[in-house]
Amino acid sequence: MSASLHRTALPTFAQVQEAAARIAPYAVVTPVLRNAALNALTGADLYFKCENLQRGGAFKFRGACNAVWSMDDEQAARGVVTHSSGNHGNALALAAATRGIPAHVVVPDGAVRTKLEAIQRAGAILHRCEATQAAREATAAEVQRATGAELVHPFEDTRVMAGQGTAVLELLEQSGGLDIVVTPIGGGGLIAGTSIAAHGIAPQLQIHGAEPMGADDAARSLVAGARVGPFVPDTICDGLRTLIGAANFEALQMHRVEATTVSDAEVIAAMKLLWNELKLVVETSSATVLAAVLKRPEVFRGRRVGLVLSGGNVDIEALPW
Amino acid sequence: MSASLHRTALPTFAQVQEAAARIAPYAVVTPVLRNAALNALTGADLYFKCENLQRGGAFKFRGACNAVWSMDDEQAARGVVTHSSGNHGNALALAAATRGIPAHVVVPDGAVRTKLEAIQRAGAILHRCEATQAAREATAAEVQRATGAELVHPFEDTRVMAGQGTAVLELLEQSGGLDIVVTPIGGGGLIAGTSIAAHGIAPQLQIHGAEPMGADDAARSLVAGARVGPFVPDTICDGLRTLIGAANFEALQMHRVEATTVSDAEVIAAMKLLWNELKLVVETSSATVLAAVLKRPEVFRGRRVGLVLSGGNVDIEALPW
Repeated sequence: MSASLHRTALPTFAQVQEAAARIAPYAVVTPVLRNAALNALTGADLYFKCENLQRGGAFKFRGACNAVWSMDDEQAARGVVTHSSGNHGNALALAAATRGIPAHVVVPDGAVRTKLEAIQRAGAILHRCEATQAAREATAAEVQRATGAELVHPFEDTRVMAGQGTAVLELLEQSGGLDIVVTPIGGGGLIAGTSIAAHGIAPQLQIHGAEPMGADDAARSLVAGARVGPFVPDTICDGLRTLIGAANFEALQMHRVEATTVSDAEVIAAMKLLWNELKLVVETSSATVLAAVLKRPEVFRGRRVGLVLSGGNVDIEALPW
Repeated sequence: MSASLHRTALPTFAQVQEAAARIAPYAVVTPVLRNAALNALTGADLYFKCENLQRGGAFKFRGACNAVWSMDDEQAARGVVTHSSGNHGNALALAAATRGIPAHVVVPDGAVRTKLEAIQRAGAILHRCEATQAAREATAAEVQRATGAELVHPFEDTRVMAGQGTAVLELLEQSGGLDIVVTPIGGGGLIAGTSIAAHGIAPQLQIHGAEPMGADDAARSLVAGARVGPFVPDTICDGLRTLIGAANFEALQMHRVEATTVSDAEVIAAMKLLWNELKLVVETSSATVLAAVLKRPEVFRGRRVGLVLSGGNVDIEALPW
């Protein structure tokens, strides 16, 4: 059944905890870094959760791994399928490999070369299609019919959202407590999972989302009180060009998530700071979180702020500066 | 007294342990990363000690911090001085700031812009001089006379070597045991400290040094059985253009260190692998260690290998590819 035909259930806090136990043998407990220069610059106490150091170079491995290991043996044997031009496709391929099952990844034309190569190296079977949402979904459905593979949607999937929520469980423990957590907003798998996980432990914690101005549907939807329709993204943040999912948006409303939008220029400036000060290779999408903190000092100053650095899959021979 | 006029004493294992306790309040216990792709590529079990994530972006903070906190209050009040165009100058400035004492850094003309800016931001007093060893030493001696500041040599200093040795103490504990440790060789502070520290815990551990072909004095000295004379370095590894110190070289002989030399092209290839696979910003000098493992698979295959990624201070707007 296509995710658009039924309501995706949000995971419970217990499901996030189960996901943490399920993925523990495979996922990296990524380090949390602190930095005096960036603390001085922002006036805040920053805790960077380094999901760029996660397996596959992005938090996406958490959700994909939870989905892969949630299936029963019979279902798992038929494999998994998704449509993704980026980190989720790679993550699902890597997760499938941990269970020794086939992974089919539908990739739209024009996807980033380095990300495609990574998906292929991870052992996935690639299925090319046109770069439209309709073509992606149709091709994935075709693979499902032909193989019986289980669809693992990048963000409209309870198991995936639960898995993404495990990063903030670690972050809260590693930091010893926070006032605010900031994650990027794309399809909303990370921020939905983060909200449910964080509030399961610390109900007063503020959840903040960072979104590129050229893909600011979640921010506009929060203002409008209802999800806005499809849009044409225009941002260098290739991981965040997605319309937020319906259930994901509900999670944002329920958890009183606040969104800040940032320009591509602000993203690039923040990305350089992360590279120079933290010595980490992070991708554009990850830099949105620091850009948001820099943009609204009045929100973050004097607070303990957790920032999820979502990934590090960038073409180092084609940097945006 | 100039380091060249007397024999610098090598630290004892106990002095390394004391250094670890002394710097603990200020230094970062840097993470150790593992990577499936790089393990597959090398056939070895690799443990990367991320000193690029150390304060100041390099292991140098360890030695500088140990020196700064080894001094008595009266001596410390007069400050510290060194000559360094790079990471040691920055490290000493940061270390001095932790004790609230002045740091003087003599910088030769032509030093890397970003490294100079970092030294200045760290609060040091800069003293420019010509880019010769004689001018550096003369200017440092002049600052000593004028201020009474204590000289903290980048590598010919017992306290500095002891501090550098603390990284491998952590690495051995974090990895759960190793067969070989590989560090870069420049002036020899890191590899001397590493040898003494590692053999204090694991006498059978092999110590391996990686050196650029264009600054291969340590490798040639080991073959000759005696330290070769001054040379004109020709390598992109700006942190390793130094003649190894006399005591440092003795440590290499005593601890049966083996050296592997790598070309600049091999360094750049390894650096790209580290950026792409580990998602870390590391500088050219750091990449020598992976280049050495790739160059001599017969030495490393099937072994547990610790690699010290020495630093991450690189101009991200002028990358060598």
